[in-house]
Amino acid sequence: MPASLPSKTAAGRFFEDFRLGETIRHSTPRTLTSGDASLYSALTGARFAPQSAETFARAIGYPASPIDDMLAFHVVFGKTVADVSLNAVANLGYADCRFLKPVFPGDTLSAVSRVIGLKENSNRQSGIVHVRSQGFNQRGETVLDYVRWVMAPKRKPDAPAPAAHVPSLPEAVGAADLGQACPRIDSAAFDTELGGSPHRFEDYSHGERIDHIDGVTVEEAEYQMAARLYQNSARVHFNQFSQAQGRFGRRLVYGGHVISLARALSFNGLANAFHIAAINGGRHVAPLFAGDTVFAWSEVLETVGLPGRDDVGGLRLRTVATKNRPCADYPHREGGGYEPHVVLELDYWALAPRRP
Amino acid sequence: MPASLPSKTAAGRFFEDFRLGETIRHSTPRTLTSGDASLYSALTGARFAPQSAETFARAIGYPASPIDDMLAFHVVFGKTVADVSLNAVANLGYADCRFLKPVFPGDTLSAVSRVIGLKENSNRQSGIVHVRSQGFNQRGETVLDYVRWVMAPKRKPDAPAPAAHVPSLPEAVGAADLGQACPRIDSAAFDTELGGSPHRFEDYSHGERIDHIDGVTVEEAEYQMAARLYQNSARVHFNQFSQAQGRFGRRLVYGGHVISLARALSFNGLANAFHIAAINGGRHVAPLFAGDTVFAWSEVLETVGLPGRDDVGGLRLRTVATKNRPCADYPHREGGGYEPHVVLELDYWALAPRRP
Amino acid sequence: MPASLPSKTAAGRFFEDFRLGETIRHSTPRTLTSGDASLYSALTGARFAPQSAETFARAIGYPASPIDDMLAFHVVFGKTVADVSLNAVANLGYADCRFLKPVFPGDTLSAVSRVIGLKENSNRQSGIVHVRSQGFNQRGETVLDYVRWVMAPKRKPDAPAPAAHVPSLPEAVGAADLGQACPRIDSAAFDTELGGSPHRFEDYSHGERIDHIDGVTVEEAEYQMAARLYQNSARVHFNQFSQAQGRFGRRLVYGGHVISLARALSFNGLANAFHIAAINGGRHVAPLFAGDTVFAWSEVLETVGLPGRDDVGGLRLRTVATKNRPCADYPHREGGGYEPHVVLELDYWALAPRRP
Repeated sequence: MPASLPSKTAAGRFFEDFRLGETIRHSTPRTLTSGDASLYSALTGARFAPQSAETFARAIGYPASPIDDMLAFHVVFGKTVADVSLNAVANLGYADCRFLKPVFPGDTLSAVSRVIGLKENSNRQSGIVHVRSQGFNQRGETVLDYVRWVMAPKRKPDAPAPAAHVPSLPEAVGAADLGQACPRIDSAAFDTELGGSPHRFEDYSHGERIDHIDGVTVEEAEYQMAARLYQNSARVHFNQFSQAQGRFGRRLVYGGHVISLARALSFNGLANAFHIAAINGGRHVAPLFAGDTVFAWSEVLETVGLPGRDDVGGLRLRTVATKNRPCADYPHREGGGYEPHVVLELDYWALAPRRP
Repeated sequence: MPASLPSKTAAGRFFEDFRLGETIRHSTPRTLTSGDASLYSALTGARFAPQSAETFARAIGYPASPIDDMLAFHVVFGKTVADVSLNAVANLGYADCRFLKPVFPGDTLSAVSRVIGLKENSNRQSGIVHVRSQGFNQRGETVLDYVRWVMAPKRKPDAPAPAAHVPSLPEAVGAADLGQACPRIDSAAFDTELGGSPHRFEDYSHGERIDHIDGVTVEEAEYQMAARLYQNSARVHFNQFSQAQGRFGRRLVYGGHVISLARALSFNGLANAFHIAAINGGRHVAPLFAGDTVFAWSEVLETVGLPGRDDVGGLRLRTVATKNRPCADYPHREGGGYEPHVVLELDYWALAPRRP
Repeated sequence: MPASLPSKTAAGRFFEDFRLGETIRHSTPRTLTSGDASLYSALTGARFAPQSAETFARAIGYPASPIDDMLAFHVVFGKTVADVSLNAVANLGYADCRFLKPVFPGDTLSAVSRVIGLKENSNRQSGIVHVRSQGFNQRGETVLDYVRWVMAPKRKPDAPAPAAHVPSLPEAVGAADLGQACPRIDSAAFDTELGGSPHRFEDYSHGERIDHIDGVTVEEAEYQMAARLYQNSARVHFNQFSQAQGRFGRRLVYGGHVISLARALSFNGLANAFHIAAINGGRHVAPLFAGDTVFAWSEVLETVGLPGRDDVGGLRLRTVATKNRPCADYPHREGGGYEPHVVLELDYWALAPRRP
């Protein structure tokens, strides 16, 4: 009887396994369906009108009700986990994330990542890996393009490390790059009463802060189902037996689930900000566990017109999510770090209909 | 930097915000899909044959397998929450609820409510609000029409109250109003073996009582997913942080989830009572919490023929659900109230196929 | 008022209710949809490429992305529960299970069982019932055929028992019977990078053992939703009130859920073994409860070519699942029984693409 061949199973990459410039084609394409959309709503509470109703989507100019942007994001992200972050010590950040084509039920997403940055940490135990990941639909069109970086442990501390390379990343996606995944909409047909709020793009102003008020408590079954729906196989979300022996003693809620919950909570105050056009940056400040209640608030960082478009405008938003702490007083930074209870800071562009 | 504009977020209405005769168009139309139907089955255990199988539905005369009646109800109900009952102290009752058109995957539901009753409570802290809510499909056809009433708190006890008006409501929906959402079926093609029971309309008689035997324990993740599937944003179902400080210290299971569980349990004894044609009245007697086990029994209150139809007959049923108490001895009322452990009393009309 | 008619509710069969040779047509046909597929992925983590992506399935020769084999199995199995195992003391085993036609979204499954074995236990309290169950699609084609046997209690110990009959069952399904549910595939088009592993049929060898490494913790809401999705009404999975008074004091995870979790875990090591062609035998060694973490490992028991086919080969696998015990050292039997922590032993045939 031959010995077991360890190579049959994926052990995940360590820092020294990445090569600058290398392209990784990720496994398991995934066809998104109306079933995924239902489940996404049930797990997160997402309920923006174009994603909720065929009639609404078609009335404003979509050919069909699109898949929620964050569902598409999570599915693409999920594919990258086995190759990029299975062993990651930390998921450090996102940048330059652009949504480039709408995704509809029936579309099949696949993903490719390119290693664009490698820098060993000074303790030689780990290093920072930057990848630019792209999600494609079945026609080969790029639907999503983003950079993320993780801290990857080294298999052996004394393994040689490549020359440090840290990519330069934009602080924010520019207005000219927004809206590619949003067809030209008929803003007069955007029925704000059905949308859930009377407020359009013009009603939001720089510096405005909105407490989204509601809180949502997370259950183990919910984030496990969500992560599996996205085929995200990161072990920290599923294996209580191992986690019991780890740093937290608990399974960790997938950080993307927190983003989705915060986005869904933001419906209360931003109901017509129906499309995420870009994510400028995102940071998981602290882990979330089952039983925690997520709250969120947002600040309007910027409002911009989109070149050549009078149908929608861009709201640059910073959404901060907390755990077990309401956000009426807009908790955020404190000293060099974050106030206690803050779990997420997300800087993104949402589009809202302009006044017709 | 402008101050946050509180008006961006929905705080829900208080008693003094309602006007008699006012019409409220609710937000977020929702397209129902086969994904919603799957999730509804998985969350509630619903398994009546026409809703379960295309083949069965078509064999008896439906153009396709219809969406479960209670799923359609919950989706319409869910839309009304933000405008009618976000702050409600109690969801007091339902009446005159008629299912008027079948709902199929692909249909988009929206909802409108009219305020038909207002009566301040004598303590001036709150008042009773009656609304008649209607659900429409994408063709503007009314699929559902019902009255519910809630106890809404007043923002200020000394706010002036309108003249009291309490609508008169029918004790039960009449036989002539039943069956509009049920196409004429081929009762000979209704295969009772596949349906799950040999019993047809004629086999049930006035006064007959049926213990549905089985019990089902409710988990937090289940009712939260159900309520989100219906876009029901009532805070008491989701926010453990706030609820911990409240009267029960716990999140409350959405009352409609209890109705769905009782209806699913009733399959054992009423398997061929495939369609809810009307709800005469419903009352959530006590709250349900995660970990509780729901049992149910039903009594046949009345059996009626439908004018001009020999395909189906109407069974007026009273289904009583309990928590943590089997129903072999049919627990119900006691003194002026209900026996302990009773959580729901529902009086409704179900249709069953007649003998061909 | 007439007394309640107990016959209205299904009490389940006892040993003396079965007749050798009797055919039982089970209730509630079920149309499988893309919503069921989504939910199955979210509940189990299933992510084999042809079942995950339309594009992948079509590229290799399927007309569409097929329903996961175990989802089809569970739905057929679920139908048999009310008639075969509602009162069963134990679900003892499976044998001679063959997948005969692929199942696609839109197909409606129904089930029929024939009693092929009856043998009273010596204590006269119970007996072993063997049934051969078949699942059919809407065209009447058999999609699944398998034998299972359960220990059924007797209603009355002194009830007469039929002459003992134990069917002879094959130790394993033969190679000639494999692959009927798998269309001829274009193995050159089977993109192993997208599939999740470079390994094809030829890369596996007899005696090889694979630790699937990952572990997954089960939640009550997950297996309850799974069992309801399959319309499996076995009471031990749902009713904590009754179970609290029973042998384990807990609800039991549906054994089929353990099979699905083990199969999903096996992706890590067997990613391209995309189709279960047959189950030779299966045994639930010990019960699983919520909070337990499932691990799994597999041994290649046999590798065979399929008569007349050079596209796929058969891997006979023994997958062993444990609870709360990693499988790096391949835990299995011990003395006459199983090592502690083993919960499942499954012997099955999976098909993998051959080298083109």
